[in-house]
Formats: sequence, C-alpha cells, structure tokens
Amino acid sequence: MAGGSGERFWPLSRQKRPKQLLKLTSPDKTMLDEAIERIAPLIAPEHIFIVTSHVLQSAIRESLAGNGSYNIPPENIIAEPLKRNTAPCIALGAAFVAERYAPLLPSEISIAVLTADHFIEKPDVFRASVDAALNHAEQSGSLVTFGVTPTRPATGYGYIEVAGKQNGLKPLLVKGFREKPNAETAQDFIERGNFFWNSGMFFWRADAVITGLQDHLPEVGVRITDLREALAGATTTAYDGAPPRTIDTFEHLPDISIDYGLMERAKNVACVCVDFGWDDVGSWDALERVYEADAAGNINVGDSVLLDAKNCIVLNSAGSQSVSVAAIGVENLVIVATPDGILVCPKDRVQDVRKAVSALRERDNGKFV
Amino acid sequence: MAGGSGERFWPLSRQKRPKQLLKLTSPDKTMLDEAIERIAPLIAPEHIFIVTSHVLQSAIRESLAGNGSYNIPPENIIAEPLKRNTAPCIALGAAFVAERYAPLLPSEISIAVLTADHFIEKPDVFRASVDAALNHAEQSGSLVTFGVTPTRPATGYGYIEVAGKQNGLKPLLVKGFREKPNAETAQDFIERGNFFWNSGMFFWRADAVITGLQDHLPEVGVRITDLREALAGATTTAYDGAPPRTIDTFEHLPDISIDYGLMERAKNVACVCVDFGWDDVGSWDALERVYEADAAGNINVGDSVLLDAKNCIVLNSAGSQSVSVAAIGVENLVIVATPDGILVCPKDRVQDVRKAVSALRERDNGKFV
Repeated sequence: MAGGSGERFWPLSRQKRPKQLLKLTSPDKTMLDEAIERIAPLIAPEHIFIVTSHVLQSAIRESLAGNGSYNIPPENIIAEPLKRNTAPCIALGAAFVAERYAPLLPSEISIAVLTADHFIEKPDVFRASVDAALNHAEQSGSLVTFGVTPTRPATGYGYIEVAGKQNGLKPLLVKGFREKPNAETAQDFIERGNFFWNSGMFFWRADAVITGLQDHLPEVGVRITDLREALAGATTTAYDGAPPRTIDTFEHLPDISIDYGLMERAKNVACVCVDFGWDDVGSWDALERVYEADAAGNINVGDSVLLDAKNCIVLNSAGSQSVSVAAIGVENLVIVATPDGILVCPKDRVQDVRKAVSALRERDNGKFV
Repeated sequence: MAGGSGERFWPLSRQKRPKQLLKLTSPDKTMLDEAIERIAPLIAPEHIFIVTSHVLQSAIRESLAGNGSYNIPPENIIAEPLKRNTAPCIALGAAFVAERYAPLLPSEISIAVLTADHFIEKPDVFRASVDAALNHAEQSGSLVTFGVTPTRPATGYGYIEVAGKQNGLKPLLVKGFREKPNAETAQDFIERGNFFWNSGMFFWRADAVITGLQDHLPEVGVRITDLREALAGATTTAYDGAPPRTIDTFEHLPDISIDYGLMERAKNVACVCVDFGWDDVGSWDALERVYEADAAGNINVGDSVLLDAKNCIVLNSAGSQSVSVAAIGVENLVIVATPDGILVCPKDRVQDVRKAVSALRERDNGKFV
C-alpha cells in the first residue's frame, strides 16, 4: 500500500511527493525503495504489487525507474481510481491478484499486505516475521496481523489485545482491536503486557480476505467480482490511471478502514507478535526514533551549523553546499529547509504542520503544497 | 561613512553586501539609498562623498547606479585602502575634501560626517538637526556631535554626558563620552536626564578636525598632509581601489575610533541634542523598532504563514512566491530565509549571529558569508 498523501512532512512532502517517495529514513533511498528492498529477498519483484492513488501512479513509476537494484514491472503499479480508505484499497488489491494469478484459485494465493512508508530497523527479523505470518495464513485460512511489541506507551497508535503471552513468532488469538488510547490507557496497556501496536500489515489467503469482506463488510465484499471483471477487461501493461470500470465500482465503496471494516468484526483473526524495530514515521518528530542524536540531542541531517542548539531536528534537504542553515540557541525545534519551503515548529506542534499546509494551500492556490 | 561589514545580518548580509547595501528598513531602498535621499534636500549630490572599504567600492557604485532618483558622481566614492577604524576613515575624508575643494581653505569647508546604515524615523527633523549642527560648527569652530535623546536604558550604545538641559537644537557643552554601560548604569543615565546616545555623526570645519587630530591624535594627524598629497596625485574619475600612495600611509595609521582618539580628548566639543527617531540597526532584533508588529507581536516581512507564533521576527527575502515559510507555535524567534542561507535564533541571541558566520566561514571557506 503506497497511497498516503503525507501532508505532515511538508515542506519535504508535496501532493505528488508524499512520504513514501521521500528519502526520509535513509540518505539515498525513498521509503518505498526501502520497503521493496526489504521484502525482495522473500518475494520476487514480479510478485510485488504496489497499490497507490491515481495521482501518484506516474510519480511512483518514475521513482522506481530511478532505482536499478530491483525491477518491479510497471504494470504491477495499481491505481485506486478515487481516494478511499484501506478496505477498498485492499479489496482492489485482492481482486487484482486473484485475476492476475488465475487460473490459480483464490485459496491457492496468499497475500502479504505491507506498508510502503514505515521505518523498520531490522529487515532480517522483519522477513522472518512475514514468513511466519504468511505460513500461518496459508495453513489456517486465518486473517493474520502483526502486533508490534510496544516500547513506550504511545498514544499515536492503535493497539491489538491478544490472548496469551508473546512466544517468539507463534500466532496468538486476537481478543480485540483498540483505537488510539489516551496516555493513561496506553500506560495500562503497556503494564498489562498483552497489548501490541497495530502496524497496519496483514497476511491472508485471497479467499480468506474476499470471504471475510463478503461476510463482514458486504458494501465492499459484493463489489469484488465487479472489480475483477473491470480489471480483466483492462490492458495490463503500463496503463496510466485506473481502468475506467473500476472508477464506477469505487464510487460505490465506503470510506472505511480494513481494521474497522473487517479485522474488528471477523472471528478468525490471529496476531504474530513482532520485534523488528518499527515506527510508522507519522510526523517530523519520528526522525528522533530513526536517527541517532548527537551529544546535545540534535538530529542534524544536511550539515547545518548548530550553536548551543539542544534536542532539535534540523533537516536541510538541499545540502550545505547549496543552502546554509544556522540555528543558534534553540531547543526542541524542528527546522526543515527545502529549496522552496521552510518549516520552523516546536517538536510538540508537529501535528499542526497540516494546518500550515492548509493555510498555504489557501494562500497560494496549492503552489507549495 | 559606508564601510561596515555587517556580519550581524547574515544570511541577508554577505561580505560584499553589508548592512548599508540591504533593503532592511524599507521594502525598496537600501539603507545607503535612504541615507542619501534623506540628506539630498540639504546637500546637493555632487557634494556628497561616500567613504567605504576598497572591497565594497564597486558594489556601492553598482548599487547607486541602480537608483535613478539622485546622482552621486562615481568619483565621490572613496575607498579606504585597508580596514581601519573611524579615525583613519575620517582623516581620509577630511584630506579628500580639503584637496577636492582647494583653493578654498580648510576653514572655509564644513563637513557633516553621517552614517549610511542607521534608521531615522523623521527625515525632516534630521535635516533640521544637521543644519543646526553645521551652523554651530561653522560659526564656533567646535567639534559638534549629535546626542540622541534616549528612549530606553539601552546598553548597546555609547552615551554623551552634557552640561545643562536639552533645549531644542541649542548646542550644549559636552562633559564626557561614556562607553556602552551595563543595565544599572544605563538606568542611572536615563534618570539623570543629561545623558544622550552617541550616534556616531559629527559636524566640523575641515580645519577644526585636522587641527584636532594633529593635537590629540598625532599618529593620525601628522599623516593628513601625506593623504592629501597621495589623493592629489590620483586621477579623480572612476578609479577602482584606493590611490596606491594612500595604502602606504594607511599602513601607518592606528586602528582607533574618532570617539576615543579625538572627541574624548578635545575640549571644544559641543552636542546638539536630537529627537528624530534614531536606531543604529545593530542586529536583527532592531527590526522591532523599525517595523510595526501585528497583534501577536510578530514582524512578518515577506508574507510567511505564522500559526500561533508570538513576538517573532520573520523575514523571507525571496518573497512568498518563490519560497514558502511556515512557522508554527514559536515565540521570540528570529527567522530569516534567503535563497541560500537560513537563520533561526531567539531574539536574545542575535548578537551571536557573528559566531555562526565564523563557523560557516570555517566550514565552507567563506562560500556563504
């Protein structure tokens, strides 16, 4: 899944350059590059599919073309015709895969639904975890999800409550999904020990997710056959935009997440508890968890001059040979400089970057957003 | 006098674009432009001379050529051959003027020594003050200085103690010059009422300043004849750099200010107390005294997006159509963005901008400074 719009990383992110296309967690690779390279040893490039929005399809194709270390066929980049939530996205992906791999039966196809814009510290542990989750999904027909062992009482993530204790990669029964908690509840989750972060990654056979949607989210489930037929009628090589008939179908799909629409309602849900150093990189302050700070607590990407600065995140995307950034005596600030946009914001206000983007959109007719 | 190097206005100021060449206190005029236009109704352009450093001579000529509203002859831009303090600068100016206006005698020539990089709120009051000071200098043969009525207990300015009470533009006897005081002393000066800010502007007949330097600062005074001869031998039209013989002379001159070398030592010193809204614009925080803040206390030059920002100074020199600047939830910050340099600094640390410039110079071999 690579459809996110990533307004929270302005000024580095723009409408056609969202988080997954940024070199945010690596100096020379986009997050999407990293996501593909991470899974490539396990899944050959021709079996990797990228579901994105129609406005990003060509940007993603161009971005991938610039990276020669793997080779995703351009027709593997699937466009959602309209902006919807993860349930329609996953339904489209399942329909696409079922159609692509026919005459294999859906029960013979297993799918790993992965994210394109998350940070994962230990790719080898990640691959072992994916392998375990896929195996369980294939053998049991369950809907399998990752539960990330929490390292702090985060309030920015949803939680999964499991039955029993974490025991390596052994799948556990899911007792329930919990929305983002307040600080007190998050602390309680951590202390109870059987609550894990919901990373938004899923593993299932095609028949399991299709049947699950038909049973629990029929508004989406009944349209999967339509989607397959629409995709079957489309040329499968290098089209731009979504096949026209998928647009008609998508218009009828609700704006609902897979967590809410399927996972919370289904009974055959299992969780593989994982420890591969995960972060969803949801806003600028996440760079603290990705990069190592210097002795003064600063993250300095792009060689800025920091005098008496403490606990700051300073990113100069143009590099110090084009633009010189100097910060003096500042604390807990996020400073991001690009050739045409500059952000200055305390760390505890990074959630409001979206508001600044809205204000800029209004002022400049979208020129800088 | 337009020789300042203005490191404190990085990233807007650079080595060849110091404060006097910046549009800092006006959207469309450099400070030098403003200084010339301010005095032009009183002194015709052909009688205005600009003393600057040899590294700035051509930059100043180009800057003035771009402004068609007055016409300073290029040969009126005089280069100091070496970086010295104000006493050598003023000696060079006096020698130049004495030579230029010969066969007039030095006693027949009066000089207003003005600054090129100060903010003056009320140009008409300024001109009346200059007129009064020049008249007194011509009639009395005194060394006349401006004493600016202080509006706050500033610790960043030198003070002049006068005998008697301010009475319009009536010249008062100077009792002494005081260096920049600490906060307590500055408060005491304000309460006593007969202390005025030293603006660094002076008025005298050419014979008075030459005799004064010969009597009180002979290291400089004895070289004035050499300077005249060196200047007499030079072509007076559009040369670049300083006449070679002035270099030899300048090498022997001490690095000393006119305040310390002459004004504090001479007896015939008078002060005209003035009220024309003066600020030396010594660092970024001075913009608060030049521009009117919005309701949240922000100075916003260049149309940045400010969300919950308070008491900030934000300057985007490229303009919002080229670069978008957004500041969220910040207080008391100075943010300056230029196409190749960005500064973020609390207001109370603006004095340390020079340190950042030094660090940048070291890192980049002077590329951005």
